[in-house]
Amino acid sequence: MKVVVLVGGVGGARFLQGVKHALGPDAEITALVNTGDDVWLHGLRICPDLDTCMYTLGAGIDTERGWGRTGETWTVKEELAAYDAGSEWFGLGDKDIATHLVRTRMLRAGYPLSQVTEALCARWQPGVRLLPMSDDRVETHVVIDDPASGERAAVHFQEWWIRHRAALPAHSIVPVGAEEATPGPGVLDAIAAADVILLAPSNPVVSVGTILAVPGVRTAMVKAEAKIVGVSPIVNDKPVRGMADACLTAIGVETTAEAVGRHYGARTSAVGLLDGWLVHTGDRAVVPDVEVRAVPLLMSDVDATASMVRAALSLAGVPVE
Amino acid sequence: MKVVVLVGGVGGARFLQGVKHALGPDAEITALVNTGDDVWLHGLRICPDLDTCMYTLGAGIDTERGWGRTGETWTVKEELAAYDAGSEWFGLGDKDIATHLVRTRMLRAGYPLSQVTEALCARWQPGVRLLPMSDDRVETHVVIDDPASGERAAVHFQEWWIRHRAALPAHSIVPVGAEEATPGPGVLDAIAAADVILLAPSNPVVSVGTILAVPGVRTAMVKAEAKIVGVSPIVNDKPVRGMADACLTAIGVETTAEAVGRHYGARTSAVGLLDGWLVHTGDRAVVPDVEVRAVPLLMSDVDATASMVRAALSLAGVPVE
Repeated sequence: MKVVVLVGGVGGARFLQGVKHALGPDAEITALVNTGDDVWLHGLRICPDLDTCMYTLGAGIDTERGWGRTGETWTVKEELAAYDAGSEWFGLGDKDIATHLVRTRMLRAGYPLSQVTEALCARWQPGVRLLPMSDDRVETHVVIDDPASGERAAVHFQEWWIRHRAALPAHSIVPVGAEEATPGPGVLDAIAAADVILLAPSNPVVSVGTILAVPGVRTAMVKAEAKIVGVSPIVNDKPVRGMADACLTAIGVETTAEAVGRHYGARTSAVGLLDGWLVHTGDRAVVPDVEVRAVPLLMSDVDATASMVRAALSLAGVPVE
Repeated sequence: MKVVVLVGGVGGARFLQGVKHALGPDAEITALVNTGDDVWLHGLRICPDLDTCMYTLGAGIDTERGWGRTGETWTVKEELAAYDAGSEWFGLGDKDIATHLVRTRMLRAGYPLSQVTEALCARWQPGVRLLPMSDDRVETHVVIDDPASGERAAVHFQEWWIRHRAALPAHSIVPVGAEEATPGPGVLDAIAAADVILLAPSNPVVSVGTILAVPGVRTAMVKAEAKIVGVSPIVNDKPVRGMADACLTAIGVETTAEAVGRHYGARTSAVGLLDGWLVHTGDRAVVPDVEVRAVPLLMSDVDATASMVRAALSLAGVPVE
């Protein structure tokens, strides 16, 4: 079976673990990974979502934190702060830095991000094809009121998310560069060849939404033969993890499973995508022309996640036992 | 008193400690630092001699090893090797990497090496003005017989020195780019304004020799009002530290204090530099038209080094008590 999954970081990575577990080694799993969170820091190109997927699937992740490497140390970060106090808001671990060094050197040598990712995955063997949504630079910026000046200012998503912990209200969220971006190599082909397409329970705005903002991706999905099933990242009117509510508020969508389902919309409509929408047991969601099913959506361990995935596949009409 | 010292790495850094100690805080000490050993590795710009001077004078050095940071860890290096086996021949510590990250980012932003060095020194407060010999890229290459192919090949100095431990005979040693380089900001002014100019007991070929290969430096020194005194890096016909003999052999100079003194030559000659030449007690050196003096030249501690420096200053006619 060929499965395509649109994913962001921690939630997406755990969901991919469940897809692997549910389908076994014979499935061809392709993840279309958000790169709008990517950032240059200290001269290093950092791709948080790609790395979280790679480390999680390659058994290198710190499972407690959900991101970064297990047994991580922070020497370089402390030293950077000794040169430049205030630079330490981003969690840049020593092991992680090696990944960024390899990536940055390859990018500067002219390799596109998709090839760099493939090279890094040669070490990690994630068992899932990790495709950057685009080789072009797309950066999610967030428009806020600058706390110092009071003026409107656009900051990089990571600055808003990590430094300000998404506590400053976002007026808007803009995937800068998306309009000129093209889908990465293999992205459109994977969508066209898929037996099923899943939206991971990732952030609907800055993860899945950013992937869908790359021209051509949404159209390819709507035209694809495969059914498209989304998994709600909202459980009991709260994000399962992270601060998706702050992003949803910025785009005027309520933090409910129903509102997010309606935001993705029905494939039969002019602008929608979904054939099916999977919500958490007890959550109520009516999405016109979309089949909604409720199952436990807590990714507490890989077995529970695999059950979610099986429910999503069943909803898509491609059940596995 | 204004002192200018031409230096390389470990030996030069320790010698500068002695200069500081001998002269006290009122002296204006300027080090002209070799940058021919600088290298790009893993996308980082590494300046071994500048960093060794900066860490040594700023009390950050690993005194045991003589280079790199005290209490260093090696996580990034191990991780880089996990991506690319064979990349671990160069000693790249975690603390050290922070320095290279700051430097590389500034260089890529367009700052010249001299300004980058000043910015790094704002943290380390070396108490000596560390001037790169040039802001231009000069890279010492070594012509060897490639052990795999048997063909002649030019490799970066660091590859010969560290990876092959200078064990492959060098046919020649070339400071690539030196001919087109110009002295760094402040270099010629410091030479002209100096009360005394010292050649540290650094490698005469790849440290002091490379600085002298930058067009304009040698002429400025010969024209300077200050006396020029060199300190022999050869004691008992052996380098005090390192593998200078392998470099001297490559340029056809014997590994003796006399031969190195003659290689630098008398200032009164057409091509020479020296007014005085300081050698180790018991070493015999006759250098025509150069005043030779013998004192203990072992830099066993900062007091011993300061004594050497006092002897050199006395030989230059600017004694301090």
